[in-house]
Amino acid sequence: MRIDLNSDLGESFGRWELGDDRALLSVVTSANVACGFHAGDPSVLRRTTADAKERSVAVGAHVGYRDLAGFGRRFVDVPPADLTNDVVYQLGALAAFTRLADDRIRYVKPHGALYNTIVHHEQQAAAVVEAVRAFDPGLPVLGLPGSRFLALAEEAGLRTYREAFADRAYTPEGVLVSRREPGAVLHDPAAIAERCLRIARGLPVEAIDGTEIVIAADSLCVHGDSPGAVEIARAVADRLRSAGVAVAPFTREAPAAPEDA
Amino acid sequence: MRIDLNSDLGESFGRWELGDDRALLSVVTSANVACGFHAGDPSVLRRTTADAKERSVAVGAHVGYRDLAGFGRRFVDVPPADLTNDVVYQLGALAAFTRLADDRIRYVKPHGALYNTIVHHEQQAAAVVEAVRAFDPGLPVLGLPGSRFLALAEEAGLRTYREAFADRAYTPEGVLVSRREPGAVLHDPAAIAERCLRIARGLPVEAIDGTEIVIAADSLCVHGDSPGAVEIARAVADRLRSAGVAVAPFTREAPAAPEDA
Amino acid sequence: MRIDLNSDLGESFGRWELGDDRALLSVVTSANVACGFHAGDPSVLRRTTADAKERSVAVGAHVGYRDLAGFGRRFVDVPPADLTNDVVYQLGALAAFTRLADDRIRYVKPHGALYNTIVHHEQQAAAVVEAVRAFDPGLPVLGLPGSRFLALAEEAGLRTYREAFADRAYTPEGVLVSRREPGAVLHDPAAIAERCLRIARGLPVEAIDGTEIVIAADSLCVHGDSPGAVEIARAVADRLRSAGVAVAPFTREAPAAPEDA
Amino acid sequence: MRIDLNSDLGESFGRWELGDDRALLSVVTSANVACGFHAGDPSVLRRTTADAKERSVAVGAHVGYRDLAGFGRRFVDVPPADLTNDVVYQLGALAAFTRLADDRIRYVKPHGALYNTIVHHEQQAAAVVEAVRAFDPGLPVLGLPGSRFLALAEEAGLRTYREAFADRAYTPEGVLVSRREPGAVLHDPAAIAERCLRIARGLPVEAIDGTEIVIAADSLCVHGDSPGAVEIARAVADRLRSAGVAVAPFTREAPAAPEDA
Repeated sequence: MRIDLNSDLGESFGRWELGDDRALLSVVTSANVACGFHAGDPSVLRRTTADAKERSVAVGAHVGYRDLAGFGRRFVDVPPADLTNDVVYQLGALAAFTRLADDRIRYVKPHGALYNTIVHHEQQAAAVVEAVRAFDPGLPVLGLPGSRFLALAEEAGLRTYREAFADRAYTPEGVLVSRREPGAVLHDPAAIAERCLRIARGLPVEAIDGTEIVIAADSLCVHGDSPGAVEIARAVADRLRSAGVAVAPFTREAPAAPEDA
Repeated sequence: MRIDLNSDLGESFGRWELGDDRALLSVVTSANVACGFHAGDPSVLRRTTADAKERSVAVGAHVGYRDLAGFGRRFVDVPPADLTNDVVYQLGALAAFTRLADDRIRYVKPHGALYNTIVHHEQQAAAVVEAVRAFDPGLPVLGLPGSRFLALAEEAGLRTYREAFADRAYTPEGVLVSRREPGAVLHDPAAIAERCLRIARGLPVEAIDGTEIVIAADSLCVHGDSPGAVEIARAVADRLRSAGVAVAPFTREAPAAPEDA
Repeated sequence: MRIDLNSDLGESFGRWELGDDRALLSVVTSANVACGFHAGDPSVLRRTTADAKERSVAVGAHVGYRDLAGFGRRFVDVPPADLTNDVVYQLGALAAFTRLADDRIRYVKPHGALYNTIVHHEQQAAAVVEAVRAFDPGLPVLGLPGSRFLALAEEAGLRTYREAFADRAYTPEGVLVSRREPGAVLHDPAAIAERCLRIARGLPVEAIDGTEIVIAADSLCVHGDSPGAVEIARAVADRLRSAGVAVAPFTREAPAAPEDA
Repeated sequence: MRIDLNSDLGESFGRWELGDDRALLSVVTSANVACGFHAGDPSVLRRTTADAKERSVAVGAHVGYRDLAGFGRRFVDVPPADLTNDVVYQLGALAAFTRLADDRIRYVKPHGALYNTIVHHEQQAAAVVEAVRAFDPGLPVLGLPGSRFLALAEEAGLRTYREAFADRAYTPEGVLVSRREPGAVLHDPAAIAERCLRIARGLPVEAIDGTEIVIAADSLCVHGDSPGAVEIARAVADRLRSAGVAVAPFTREAPAAPEDA
């Protein structure tokens, strides 16, 4: 029994620091690294990829909209062809730094508003899939189960992995409860850790209405941009390990991608 | 006898078009392609690299300062470590698009103020050299003969190529006459073409003061951001070819870079 | 009988020039001046406001989304409070340059995707209205008749002006035909000029289906980012004037705004 | 006996927060507010100007180079005419928000690399002076005693104010010791507070070599982007007040600027 823990990293920019990357890198097994369009500057990419390599944390490309002011959290109606090229550009930039770290990009996970949009937006979902396929068809993607993104990625022959959110409530249908609803975000580290253990074991957890649902996941997303969040991440990792669940990158057995052939 | 013709391409950005790239690609043998920091957006990079490949024009990375508003023409006192990372980022981004075009980056030529700065600025010159070496030590660089940039690149084991400027006057010492001086820029296509032929043949040309100098060059830089400039580029290419000088990329015999191994 | 001719100006940015501003300023009576978020840098704002003042052309603030790469033509889901502040920022920046030109902002016209969005997007329309009201309740707005933007502006006590598009086809309901439909854009200068004259006189013009509609307008929008467009603008202005229609800013009688009090 | 305490505020940007603005606003009497070019987005400007007004803290325009990635801390060789326009743009943007707060800009203090550059760079110093003069000749400037900036501002008829740095060592000549030298930055709150009191009283303080110098200052600059810095600011304010020195904006008696006439 094994599961991956992923978190967003490398979200600093110039003078502005965000998140406790060092602490997170000692906890998670996969790092979604910002590529410069919504966060992350070249020196941050350099440092983050080097640190991840040192800790044997798998580096994923956290690609986003070109929107520093909005941190990639605002939908931008980018024409699909341009979106494909925006994603390719980010993949190339990050790949330069994983190369310098004697490493490589292990997966792609869209960020923020792009992540949310391609759950349902057919054209933008296809644009992101096309970017990954064109850049490297051996590169897996990580996304929301049931999303158009994962469905189209599978159709395009990409390996797909499903993620669950450690600190978020789900509807009985297995969809995330909107952050605008009460109870959408969970706060108790112990309860979150227990819940994550059940997900990892394939056991049902409670939906927001009290019914039970099974959330299939290859990776658990934990957050790190607040001290409490790091504590939660640690509680989850500790609980999983102490219960005998291996915490390891979902990409570990992935065959070498063409870029390194 | 052979020489290369290089020109800046891919300098459009979003709605703003600059230069007659299609016309230039039918004339030059090497294209200095903007990488998004001073010009060029991802869709421009995509189109430019594809067009260059189709025309068998060698793609060079035209790396510059992060300064869209100044088009990379203003010196920015970037700390060397950050400059290295800025250049690596741009190399990676462009490499993603040459990969999509089933091609690769053939050389690196710094742009604008960065080009001028590293003629003499030891630290920034070393920072650019370090970026190229770290990204791909098999990648040659193109620069000004006598510059600190070329000297440090050579010391670092990079292959170096020298360029001359088709439409610029030189001092008796072989240095470019400042654009602020009268006579700094040449305008007559026939005279420029004749001068380029002499440079290609290793014959002396007239310096600004009437004395004769020899300008050693592997590549001639022509400009393309005005209709007259394209005409000059064409006149140079025609004159060289009609005189039996092969016009071909200086990188043609370069061994495959590691990125394609 | 009188009408205004407006056009987008000041859309250059750094090295990139766009539009024939000098030619347009000799034709139109109102200039929608880009404020730096989708186009226009500070030196372009300086020059454009000075040139407009010299030609007695009324300066309008052409406020847009913060999206240089997309030229403000892509919807961005900016939270309303941030959008209000983005618009206020742009108004302030432009006002600094009209002040230097011994002039003032005469009206506000949203640009591109923002213009189209607030035809129907209640929250963003209200956000733009709130920005204008907070900055200067004496500042009129120019927009699409029937839009939520004009309705909310009126409710907020702002003076509102309606514009028609010289070179665009309309549906029988008086709505612009989408550019994706055939026949959406008109090209014949003489026909466009004639049509504009009828609009200025309050006479019906042909809709796309051949039926007749009356388009009420205080201002006619002409474009200027191609040589043909300037020719059309000139044909419209000439036709109007030769038929005795005064071509003058719709803001001419506007009382002085508080900023100049 | 009175003196002003100034600090940099409003340096957050989008998702990235920087500095404890609320704490600082309860301590300082003048706030150097970032205007969006090196830091500060429109919503940050809105909030910062409103908070400053509420606390009766004087708002200064902290104008800087257009360089978010470098936080305005890297010299950019902007042509003087463009620099003037960049500064005017920032003044206009900030003025829109002080207007919304029923307040006005009280002074101008250049930021970071621009501040350091115009201590000696004649052309850029003149460019900033020209921007202030053109925007509002009634607007005072705050800068380094002995700088070209203050000298040229005075020649241009602007009111000038001198600042001293609370936590920095000085040479016997009264120049700041470079941060690269040991002992350049002072850390002990009580010692700093005592030193500030002596400066406020016009008494000599110790230079880095132990000799005594008098530092004439209208305002003391304290920093706020670390918890320790806020503590130092508070220690300085408390010490001054307990010793009977009035801590008040240096601009308090300034006549109303034209923008509010």
